[in-house]
Amino acid sequence: MYAPTPPNPDAPPLRINLYSDTQTRPTRAMREAMLNAEVGDEQLGLDPTINALCARVARLLGKEAAIFLPSGAMCNSIAILTHCRPGDEIIAHESAHIIEAEGGAPWALAGARVHGLPGARGFFSADDLRASLRGASRYAAPQTLLEIEQTSNLGGGAVWPLATLQELAGIAHEAGMATHMDGARLMNAVVASGVAAADYAAPFDTVWIDFTKGLGAPLGAVLAGSAATIDQAWHWKQRLGGSLRQAGICAAGCLYALDHHVDRLAEDHANAKRLAEGLAGVAGIVIEPPDTNLVYADVATSGRTPGAWAESLRAQGIMVSVMGRTRLRLCTHLDVSAADIEETIAAFAAIN
Amino acid sequence: MYAPTPPNPDAPPLRINLYSDTQTRPTRAMREAMLNAEVGDEQLGLDPTINALCARVARLLGKEAAIFLPSGAMCNSIAILTHCRPGDEIIAHESAHIIEAEGGAPWALAGARVHGLPGARGFFSADDLRASLRGASRYAAPQTLLEIEQTSNLGGGAVWPLATLQELAGIAHEAGMATHMDGARLMNAVVASGVAAADYAAPFDTVWIDFTKGLGAPLGAVLAGSAATIDQAWHWKQRLGGSLRQAGICAAGCLYALDHHVDRLAEDHANAKRLAEGLAGVAGIVIEPPDTNLVYADVATSGRTPGAWAESLRAQGIMVSVMGRTRLRLCTHLDVSAADIEETIAAFAAIN
Amino acid sequence: MYAPTPPNPDAPPLRINLYSDTQTRPTRAMREAMLNAEVGDEQLGLDPTINALCARVARLLGKEAAIFLPSGAMCNSIAILTHCRPGDEIIAHESAHIIEAEGGAPWALAGARVHGLPGARGFFSADDLRASLRGASRYAAPQTLLEIEQTSNLGGGAVWPLATLQELAGIAHEAGMATHMDGARLMNAVVASGVAAADYAAPFDTVWIDFTKGLGAPLGAVLAGSAATIDQAWHWKQRLGGSLRQAGICAAGCLYALDHHVDRLAEDHANAKRLAEGLAGVAGIVIEPPDTNLVYADVATSGRTPGAWAESLRAQGIMVSVMGRTRLRLCTHLDVSAADIEETIAAFAAIN
Amino acid sequence: MYAPTPPNPDAPPLRINLYSDTQTRPTRAMREAMLNAEVGDEQLGLDPTINALCARVARLLGKEAAIFLPSGAMCNSIAILTHCRPGDEIIAHESAHIIEAEGGAPWALAGARVHGLPGARGFFSADDLRASLRGASRYAAPQTLLEIEQTSNLGGGAVWPLATLQELAGIAHEAGMATHMDGARLMNAVVASGVAAADYAAPFDTVWIDFTKGLGAPLGAVLAGSAATIDQAWHWKQRLGGSLRQAGICAAGCLYALDHHVDRLAEDHANAKRLAEGLAGVAGIVIEPPDTNLVYADVATSGRTPGAWAESLRAQGIMVSVMGRTRLRLCTHLDVSAADIEETIAAFAAIN
Repeated sequence: MYAPTPPNPDAPPLRINLYSDTQTRPTRAMREAMLNAEVGDEQLGLDPTINALCARVARLLGKEAAIFLPSGAMCNSIAILTHCRPGDEIIAHESAHIIEAEGGAPWALAGARVHGLPGARGFFSADDLRASLRGASRYAAPQTLLEIEQTSNLGGGAVWPLATLQELAGIAHEAGMATHMDGARLMNAVVASGVAAADYAAPFDTVWIDFTKGLGAPLGAVLAGSAATIDQAWHWKQRLGGSLRQAGICAAGCLYALDHHVDRLAEDHANAKRLAEGLAGVAGIVIEPPDTNLVYADVATSGRTPGAWAESLRAQGIMVSVMGRTRLRLCTHLDVSAADIEETIAAFAAIN
Repeated sequence: MYAPTPPNPDAPPLRINLYSDTQTRPTRAMREAMLNAEVGDEQLGLDPTINALCARVARLLGKEAAIFLPSGAMCNSIAILTHCRPGDEIIAHESAHIIEAEGGAPWALAGARVHGLPGARGFFSADDLRASLRGASRYAAPQTLLEIEQTSNLGGGAVWPLATLQELAGIAHEAGMATHMDGARLMNAVVASGVAAADYAAPFDTVWIDFTKGLGAPLGAVLAGSAATIDQAWHWKQRLGGSLRQAGICAAGCLYALDHHVDRLAEDHANAKRLAEGLAGVAGIVIEPPDTNLVYADVATSGRTPGAWAESLRAQGIMVSVMGRTRLRLCTHLDVSAADIEETIAAFAAIN
Repeated sequence: MYAPTPPNPDAPPLRINLYSDTQTRPTRAMREAMLNAEVGDEQLGLDPTINALCARVARLLGKEAAIFLPSGAMCNSIAILTHCRPGDEIIAHESAHIIEAEGGAPWALAGARVHGLPGARGFFSADDLRASLRGASRYAAPQTLLEIEQTSNLGGGAVWPLATLQELAGIAHEAGMATHMDGARLMNAVVASGVAAADYAAPFDTVWIDFTKGLGAPLGAVLAGSAATIDQAWHWKQRLGGSLRQAGICAAGCLYALDHHVDRLAEDHANAKRLAEGLAGVAGIVIEPPDTNLVYADVATSGRTPGAWAESLRAQGIMVSVMGRTRLRLCTHLDVSAADIEETIAAFAAIN
Repeated sequence: MYAPTPPNPDAPPLRINLYSDTQTRPTRAMREAMLNAEVGDEQLGLDPTINALCARVARLLGKEAAIFLPSGAMCNSIAILTHCRPGDEIIAHESAHIIEAEGGAPWALAGARVHGLPGARGFFSADDLRASLRGASRYAAPQTLLEIEQTSNLGGGAVWPLATLQELAGIAHEAGMATHMDGARLMNAVVASGVAAADYAAPFDTVWIDFTKGLGAPLGAVLAGSAATIDQAWHWKQRLGGSLRQAGICAAGCLYALDHHVDRLAEDHANAKRLAEGLAGVAGIVIEPPDTNLVYADVATSGRTPGAWAESLRAQGIMVSVMGRTRLRLCTHLDVSAADIEETIAAFAAIN
């Protein structure tokens, strides 16, 4: 279950924000790139900066075409709307963002259910997938889409291995299903694994990356796929209210992020690793070694609830996220320094 | 998973049909009641036999009003459409008929997801339900309906205890949720337990009974609830194409069933019990003692697949149902006699 | 606008029912055919009478396959659900039953809007259709279905000429649209014009006939189309709750109707013609000569509202239908005799 | 019919852009306001600039609460989703943007049909509205929302009189309907008429203003209503993918627009008036005097199609919009000067 606690606005000044990488703020340099952006009417295809961004992301992901959208959630919804018809079933991990955190959009908008498969670290196996396939039946919902989250957020920022993705997508395609990758943190996976984004994207009919998380832009995401799919996506962009005007201002921030904020994700990963090591030494805290920039701390045996931990940390100016009944999530990103990490470890130890 | 195998029409003559109680055929006496039915224009409220049936079922279930619908599936869909808005989440057992066997209707028609809770015999507990409630959040789908299947089909025809139902519905109502009972085999629960239908129905905002299963009518189901809900249900009956014309012919069969086919469900239960006892003695077959008229036989350890069992039985003129990867379902009903049961037990033993 | 006034149940005994051909009651002979129907589990494809009916209607309409549904409204909805995706636009006459009388089903269930074209007698022309086509655009709803009602109910039971239907369907197909015929009273058009049902149906991808109107069966309609479309229709039949059990009882009534109640529609048409002639002589009543069994009487200049006319007639045991602000509809059918017509004409004259 | 022709990117340099006020480009001063915006995580309610903008718009429109959305189209869709349930009917002018230009969003997303009333200048009367109300019926779609576009785009930028709006909303509310104003160009109406925005907004349950048209911001719109409605709107914002992150950058542009670009709309209106006068003198061009910033030129009698006019103008570096089969639209805005207007008039005269 995913239930982000909105930070308390009355708390003492926030010094270290580990709540989410969605909270990164645009740097001065990024803002200046936005200030100078060339713009046009985006929904008529006349914004040159948007067009440049879409072309670049399509290339990066190895797809024919791409479309700019205000948010990653809209990328997911539009992909689902292009792949599914009312009554369909999507197969995903049971912790998937599309189940837990998008307000029910897949069923509200597309009339599609998401069937969640269990599995450690946000993964499931080829056998799990095969076992969930029913074959055609008038009685059951048609299974028409496989959805994968790379990295898996609630799985601890875990990086799906490329071979697994290829195998799963192969099974899905053979069963006549489409495949979609929620790449909210795909670039983290790329930097952590050294696998190219286009290689991760290749087995998927649609895939998107988000610019507001580790990449640090204020808003924007880009969905890529075949030209025909992206043409369909434009119809849904219009319907969902995602068609904008002089959005090149935002795209300039995204282009800046691609130029300057991708390689540096390695720092976030190093910080996460150090944070995990530090917290592993705190009594009552169980840590799974992180693949990327998300550190989940299970406090079940600490004698304190996650909420109590979060409150004590917040009182020291450190914000973390409560995830479910026993876990905290700490997220490293470009506004979190190595020194912040040490301070956070010390704060945990002090509470204990 | 629910995947009824359509019976092979080329098989040898069928002598014993344990496939489903949906296959009961109207008796001569029931047909004659239908022949003589007084009728009118049902969708204008002018069919006297329909009106009599609805009044009778409303009384039986202790509700203000009731509405005739062509099928139980339509009862479920219309109840969901009256209780839910697009984007909502329904909580039910993971084996629920609305998840597995209605073609995805809850999400196709109502834009609602069904979140399935696990649990033996098709049951879940008050604690399970409480743990699944999230509280209001902009991120998650609103949880607006609790759905219960009495008896639980895939749970082996198990009868939910009245106290459990009352407790679950209390939790749901306290959380602001509506409650709905899929009473496809509610009358089996009534006859097996001695609890009145109205008592089972009381904790539920909507409830329906089906006339095509053990009750033996050719078609028809009646959904009951408050007058306001049933008024809304009429709008959906119109939209789903469930408004009929001289449907009193069908209602006459349902009224006949209420008069003549309720008490005799006890015979089906006795037959099921005897069948379970008999099959328990067959090597490789694991039986759970049945509450009502459904006998599930797990053949996992028999060295034969359920499909192989079903085929061998069918070759002897006996039809059973394959349910999932290891189970057979045998269903007793008014076209199955005590002698048929003995013959079936013998056939199993012979195959083995 | 379509707003049927439900007949007042407290009125004096009804002697002549011109309210609607939906009110025909099954004859004794039809009931006996139903009594003796061979039945099976319809939703498993095992009801022989249903199967015979579907095969016969498919042949009659010149289509590969057909599916039995409880009502004509469900035929319309399922056809729309197979042809359209959410956001689409259907083009139909502005008086179409799918706009005015099905509770908003096209948009409630299929997310499709019906764009209504004006035109006398429920018709529109090839030029009207061409002018309404927009071409593809991200801004506008895709136009994906042409729907025609044969005969046009609110158009006075008018029979679309075959050549017009062929031309309209040709334009639609050329524009990449599907075509659907609401054949609620198609058999009236067939009998009145001498054109074969299959010829009327040929330009349409889907078409259905209703057995509850002039054909006099208590319930049932059959939708026909290509095998692939009817296979899709089965999924929606399941979802909408239109899958039945021993529905052969109903199908027997429909088969009886095909054998005995088609040719006699000519009597209804003759009665309508005589009624129109008689009413044309009543001061203040304007009649359009009827093509089939529906007689619309405009009472705008009579100094009395349609409601007042209907009430006065009802006081004499004659029921008619109020349609909109100035019109009455009188419908001839198998429960209305030539003598009833004369009596009705006399009653009108007496009121005046 | 609304079919914007995308400008030809291969045309000669564009000097005068009368295509749409959506094409205004953010000024340097506005960009600098954006550069310096204070930001936070918008979807957690922590972006101070977004919060300031929402509070200000709520005050401006006299409503309890307001919500920032990426586009006006999303404001319309979310308002409809909060007011309507699947199967409902919305009443609007037949030229409404929600019918013609949002890709079918009302029916795709909300399952609601828009019933369009005819009338000159994009208006309809109280009598028109009353005549379109059906009263409750199981047969017809419930009519639950009245939608008004202020100003009416396809009606020539016409300003609905306040008294008419009050009367229409009164009728709607009395009929149990909600009311919604599409205020894409509400501020033009405010400046042209001298009526306060809150007075225009008062009869409407929801209302929004757009910052990308005459107000000149690159993106953003704000929907206002009761606190309860805006709370519901937040759920749909999440579902539609309209929840953003550091969107304060955009909000800063909107706040700048409220400070600096409202009063100057009077210049656009003066330019439009002068343009209309000038074009009225061109042979073959029929002009309706404009209320605000939209000038529609009917070229039906000019012997040239609108497309031919647009092409000739474009060859001279002037872009206008083709609207339907006989009209051009010329839109004045902050990137169009008085000198541009004179040049445009001269260009028209020269073509002729």
